[in-house]
Amino acid sequence: QIDSARLWGSIHETAKFGGTAKGGVRRLTLSSEDKQVRDWFRKACEDAGLEVHTDALGSQFGLRKGRDMSKLPVGIGSHLDTQPTGGKYDGILGTLGALEVIRTLNDAGIETEAPICVVNWTNEEGSRFAPAMMASAAYVGDFTTDDILSRKDIDGTTVGQALDSIGYRGDKPVGFQKLGCFVELHIEQGPILEAEGKTIGVVDSGQGVLWYDGKISGFESHAGSTPMPLRRDALAALSEIVLAMEAIAKKHGPNAVGTIGEAVIANPSRNVIPGEIAFTMDCRSADGAIMDALDRDLRAAISEIAARRKVDVKIDLVWRKPPTHFDPKLIAAVENAAKTLGYSSRRITSGAGHDACNLNTVMPAAMVFVPCKDGISHNELEDATQPDCAAGTNVLMHTVLAIAGV
Amino acid sequence: QIDSARLWGSIHETAKFGGTAKGGVRRLTLSSEDKQVRDWFRKACEDAGLEVHTDALGSQFGLRKGRDMSKLPVGIGSHLDTQPTGGKYDGILGTLGALEVIRTLNDAGIETEAPICVVNWTNEEGSRFAPAMMASAAYVGDFTTDDILSRKDIDGTTVGQALDSIGYRGDKPVGFQKLGCFVELHIEQGPILEAEGKTIGVVDSGQGVLWYDGKISGFESHAGSTPMPLRRDALAALSEIVLAMEAIAKKHGPNAVGTIGEAVIANPSRNVIPGEIAFTMDCRSADGAIMDALDRDLRAAISEIAARRKVDVKIDLVWRKPPTHFDPKLIAAVENAAKTLGYSSRRITSGAGHDACNLNTVMPAAMVFVPCKDGISHNELEDATQPDCAAGTNVLMHTVLAIAGV
Ligand SMILES: NC(=O)NCCC(=O)O
Ligand SMILES: NC(=O)NCCC(=O)O
Repeated sequence: QIDSARLWGSIHETAKFGGTAKGGVRRLTLSSEDKQVRDWFRKACEDAGLEVHTDALGSQFGLRKGRDMSKLPVGIGSHLDTQPTGGKYDGILGTLGALEVIRTLNDAGIETEAPICVVNWTNEEGSRFAPAMMASAAYVGDFTTDDILSRKDIDGTTVGQALDSIGYRGDKPVGFQKLGCFVELHIEQGPILEAEGKTIGVVDSGQGVLWYDGKISGFESHAGSTPMPLRRDALAALSEIVLAMEAIAKKHGPNAVGTIGEAVIANPSRNVIPGEIAFTMDCRSADGAIMDALDRDLRAAISEIAARRKVDVKIDLVWRKPPTHFDPKLIAAVENAAKTLGYSSRRITSGAGHDACNLNTVMPAAMVFVPCKDGISHNELEDATQPDCAAGTNVLMHTVLAIAGV
Repeated sequence: QIDSARLWGSIHETAKFGGTAKGGVRRLTLSSEDKQVRDWFRKACEDAGLEVHTDALGSQFGLRKGRDMSKLPVGIGSHLDTQPTGGKYDGILGTLGALEVIRTLNDAGIETEAPICVVNWTNEEGSRFAPAMMASAAYVGDFTTDDILSRKDIDGTTVGQALDSIGYRGDKPVGFQKLGCFVELHIEQGPILEAEGKTIGVVDSGQGVLWYDGKISGFESHAGSTPMPLRRDALAALSEIVLAMEAIAKKHGPNAVGTIGEAVIANPSRNVIPGEIAFTMDCRSADGAIMDALDRDLRAAISEIAARRKVDVKIDLVWRKPPTHFDPKLIAAVENAAKTLGYSSRRITSGAGHDACNLNTVMPAAMVFVPCKDGISHNELEDATQPDCAAGTNVLMHTVLAIAGV
């Protein structure tokens, strides 16, 4: 059994790095707050006897030796970056839970056959730089390191510049640390476990994701003197797109969602009809065929709206992540650990994307979910209980022991 | 006849203060660009022999003596501030046209019976500080000077601070310069004169304006893991409000317009359902009863949307300007000047608000419109021809001579 109080202490100690008045965390990837938590994490890993290295995209790897160093390490961990108005658990539980597993094994003097590697992946959230799960995507070869280093945030700062500014451009090439498999603990970020009174979610699949950048070009004109029929209002066009996206996701539901999270009017003024808007779209489904249908329906709806409103709408698919089907043997290991420990569990699909989904494309991977309050995440009010966090970490530890061998 | 080339030269010389790559002007009120054009204007007025004073809200008054100084001056002018992406003519033609009238009278050695006062009103546009036509509203007593001084821009800078930062908080109290009447020359900012091939618009009325600040509070949550039916998406609610506003304006049309010009998502992120949005609304009609109906219909629609979508929407009416009916005698004077000069003309309603609309509440006021290309304004592509600008300035001069007496 892990040390529940110690885990809880780590979560709340690090929550001060970027802590907000509403009890959440604002710790955008590669920000000064992210540097603070990274420094804390590196020291904690070193104190736990791990050999810590940082790769060229800033991901941190802490290695615990195994008896058989010819075996590839079992990877565990998650991320420490958050949304602009994020919570204390999303990613953090999985990273500090992994650290807690190491600390517990150390205290108990347990040596494993295979090594264990704790990982903090850079930019899982994807809110400062796109795509989400950026560093693990580069790790598995979906993007080159140089491509990722050149991605820009809204102010034009590149990933490379941001890494340098906090001193976290590591000296190891991406992929330097080989892993044999990966297990990630996370809060569910949805309402199912709580509603069904289950402690552990055995994640067997994950939704695919489509991310688009969009731009609407209408025509700026005077709010008072431009008759309604002569307008080419970019915000009115966006409004139709928002509602079309909602209707399309509902039509393909319940196994589909669609969101417009960002929309910025260029040079806004009360008495100017919006002429130009930049926006983003996020569509998901666990079913690849539905993802294709979402893309098709969305493009058709946007074309129709653009033509009717005489505005130009450009849509750029910036990221496509297919649905994930986790490794059956690892899924069984997680399920078995939960059962052995006496926790109630159920199989579950992840609505969110996770680094484990990327790793699953090149190695066996799996995930452990625990409930979060009212299914709320990406919100400062995100919450989870200490017993649930401890239960998830215990399941993580027993899964690791089963895979790594004692 | 005024000096068309000199007028055109002034317009293009000052267009460099805040000039944009697309040929427009970005000269937000009380910005450093606004200081540059104010300095230019003060010097030009002084060079033309005017006695220049600035009031406590930064409005500039240049007085040309008349034979009978017991008579109240005839006020002429407009504004030199622009929209964030504004044009070279909106306000500028009326202010530099007024200067051109003085220069022409000087050159011709014409003395008038009543004095003439050239005015550059502060913040006519209303895009940095609300309301629009702020200084002329204070001049006529709609707001106290202190109230206006405390208005804030989006960064929290007050009008008072902005005045001090460019050295334009004048030593004269608001209202120090009494005026007997006011005549304002302006581009139409709409498509009617051009479409009908008329050179002069004799403005007999102006639309009333309703300005609102709005705020939608939904609930931030995860774009991937929050099922569509559980969402309280602030952007989806805004989208319905935008389309409802459009439908309501059309229903009461053609004599009504409605615009949402600003909308800002708090802490936006691609994978977060928008939780909070601040926005503005602008509704207009030349008919007071229709203004009331717009307000009523809009509030009803918003209540329904908010209740159905389980979001909170707060609406704050920050400005209500009733429709304007200009002074019949001055309207006739403008019409007569156009006729005498041989320009084609028609009566017209102003879709935009103007300082003359404020002045009309306490003194006789009137306006002269000239065509602008495709009716475009509040856009960097705003355009007008040199002959039309000269024609409007000639009508302004002959109207002034008729009122002031030669
Ligand atoms: N777990 C999580 O919130 N990931 C962020 C990436 C996404 O799914 O949008
Ligand atoms: N003339 C003009 O564009 N005024 C700005 C104020 C408004 O009508 O919105």
